[in-house]
Amino acid sequence: MEETYSFEDKSGRKISLRPELTAPAMRFYVESLQMETKPLKLYYFGNCFRYDRPQKGRYREFWQFGVELIGSSSPLADAEVISLAYSIMNALDLDFELHIGHVGLLRHLLKEIEEDKASKIMRLIDKKDEKGLEDYLNEIGAPSDLRDNIRAMIDLTGSRDVLEDAKRIIPDFDFSHLETLCDVLDALSVEYTLNLGIARGLDYYTGVVFEAYAKHGLGAQKQICGGGSYRLAHLFGGEDVPATGFALGFDRIAEICKIKPQRKKTVVIVSFSGLESEAFRIADQIRKNTDAHVVVDVMGRNIKRQLSYANDIKADLVVIAGKKELEEGKITVKDMVTGEQKMLSIHELIDELDS
Amino acid sequence: MEETYSFEDKSGRKISLRPELTAPAMRFYVESLQMETKPLKLYYFGNCFRYDRPQKGRYREFWQFGVELIGSSSPLADAEVISLAYSIMNALDLDFELHIGHVGLLRHLLKEIEEDKASKIMRLIDKKDEKGLEDYLNEIGAPSDLRDNIRAMIDLTGSRDVLEDAKRIIPDFDFSHLETLCDVLDALSVEYTLNLGIARGLDYYTGVVFEAYAKHGLGAQKQICGGGSYRLAHLFGGEDVPATGFALGFDRIAEICKIKPQRKKTVVIVSFSGLESEAFRIADQIRKNTDAHVVVDVMGRNIKRQLSYANDIKADLVVIAGKKELEEGKITVKDMVTGEQKMLSIHELIDELDS
Repeated sequence: MEETYSFEDKSGRKISLRPELTAPAMRFYVESLQMETKPLKLYYFGNCFRYDRPQKGRYREFWQFGVELIGSSSPLADAEVISLAYSIMNALDLDFELHIGHVGLLRHLLKEIEEDKASKIMRLIDKKDEKGLEDYLNEIGAPSDLRDNIRAMIDLTGSRDVLEDAKRIIPDFDFSHLETLCDVLDALSVEYTLNLGIARGLDYYTGVVFEAYAKHGLGAQKQICGGGSYRLAHLFGGEDVPATGFALGFDRIAEICKIKPQRKKTVVIVSFSGLESEAFRIADQIRKNTDAHVVVDVMGRNIKRQLSYANDIKADLVVIAGKKELEEGKITVKDMVTGEQKMLSIHELIDELDS
Repeated sequence: MEETYSFEDKSGRKISLRPELTAPAMRFYVESLQMETKPLKLYYFGNCFRYDRPQKGRYREFWQFGVELIGSSSPLADAEVISLAYSIMNALDLDFELHIGHVGLLRHLLKEIEEDKASKIMRLIDKKDEKGLEDYLNEIGAPSDLRDNIRAMIDLTGSRDVLEDAKRIIPDFDFSHLETLCDVLDALSVEYTLNLGIARGLDYYTGVVFEAYAKHGLGAQKQICGGGSYRLAHLFGGEDVPATGFALGFDRIAEICKIKPQRKKTVVIVSFSGLESEAFRIADQIRKNTDAHVVVDVMGRNIKRQLSYANDIKADLVVIAGKKELEEGKITVKDMVTGEQKMLSIHELIDELDS
């Protein structure tokens, strides 16, 4: 790929930083997992690199979270991974559209065209480069009915009904794979649009392909998920095996994801000069027994500045463990919201924080 | 550093893959966080690279988990990060030794030596290269009492009592920082060995330093944690600020960590030809309402092969949803351990799995 981040290392070897993670996952499968019982389900989360002009939502280093299901060419396998991608994006409360297609349809249309030319056509379709596509079809002298059919197929986007239109274009294609997939997705109430013009950029896809687009917030770089069924194992010397999977564009999703981590209570332990070890011991007990965010002074600040720091970081509770309190085996706990103040044992405080 | 993984990119720029994460964290601090209220507490988990001969526990790509506490030079800050490192390693149930030292002691001994020579001595001490150290001290004509003192200091390893020995070697050094640190760590029941010969490899350390070593399983590459207090912000154009932190060697820890993820129940949904959507719907409900590991056939296998697969993967429960069951709104659930078999509604099964 042109975009690959490649260089020579100190001993002159040609090295590339990985541009995606499906190929590394399949290499790992070939090297270590070929003998395992199928199907295999792998997931990954890692950084990838491309040598490209950085722009909003498109960085030279980016993160992918992905899943590969290895060993099945059944539409059930596609249904499993598509519904998983759908569940993940829903769990993240994203506003997205899921588009599903099948590269087999366009390839079937192109079956009389030489392989490298067909690949180039698929790439132009993937890039939505209509002008480039038309020019190239002219250049290779594609017959006009083929051109019409390609244009018609690319435009087929909508509900399951578009399959009927597709059948009119390629009546000898077997649509049962797509139909079973739709049956299962419908049973799972997955909302999707059939989009028979999805070509994906890479040659390794063999059948069902899918992409998800964010509805807002990402401009032109709105694709947040891409996947499909493919064959790659042979590239790494493995036995040919069907697989299907997807990757989520983590950076783009982070950009639009509105879910915030659950807020924990912040507890500031005020420590007195000479009693710092006690403050640390109290902090340690609360940390080990609750999920509160516990802060103890590490600056050697005086009491007044510790209290003002507690204010700055919007602490929920302030714990004061002075000499008097410690002698009674108690601590003073001040609620920073209500201003209420009370003496508690550490265990009582832990119980309160835990409830 | 010699070990840095460096290369020229396609446009001829000199690039290095990051060899560690403290410097990038401090660069981020200087660029984006200098105005935030101190102290700042950052953590990271990322891959690093070194160009070195790979060996057991020492890879060209390795992972570090680390923490930096920025803004304090107090011994309390050192106590906070050391006790955190200790808690993490304990939570991972590792069998380790925690060694704590202070580079100020050796530097104090070397204060009459030129800076670059002193640095070289520190590095030789860090590498435990006794022969190299002796040769170099000869080469620069170090006085014999200095040599004796260095050797004595390096050998000071043990309980807090070694501080008394150190005081005899450098009576004009202020030991109160180390003593306060020990007070707090003792209060927190942190088990540690004072090791006044720890020099750390990098020049940026300024005071307390610490390392943890696995007791078993890693051979010579047994260091699993390293850290200390340092000053780095000025390298990135920032205002000078004290900081303290540590990094854990993730790959080495993964090698020896015996903690296994909690085992979840595995439930296999057997799907019948023509009823695959029903099987997926049942799987979906169980997945959404329990934390069970739910498997549904994605291979298009017949019932017999699905059951034998359930056996292979040691499923706890097998759910059979045939025509008869579905008509009654029930499923047959077989306990693969006891062999017991019963008819339940999906909700009853979910309640059972949840309890």
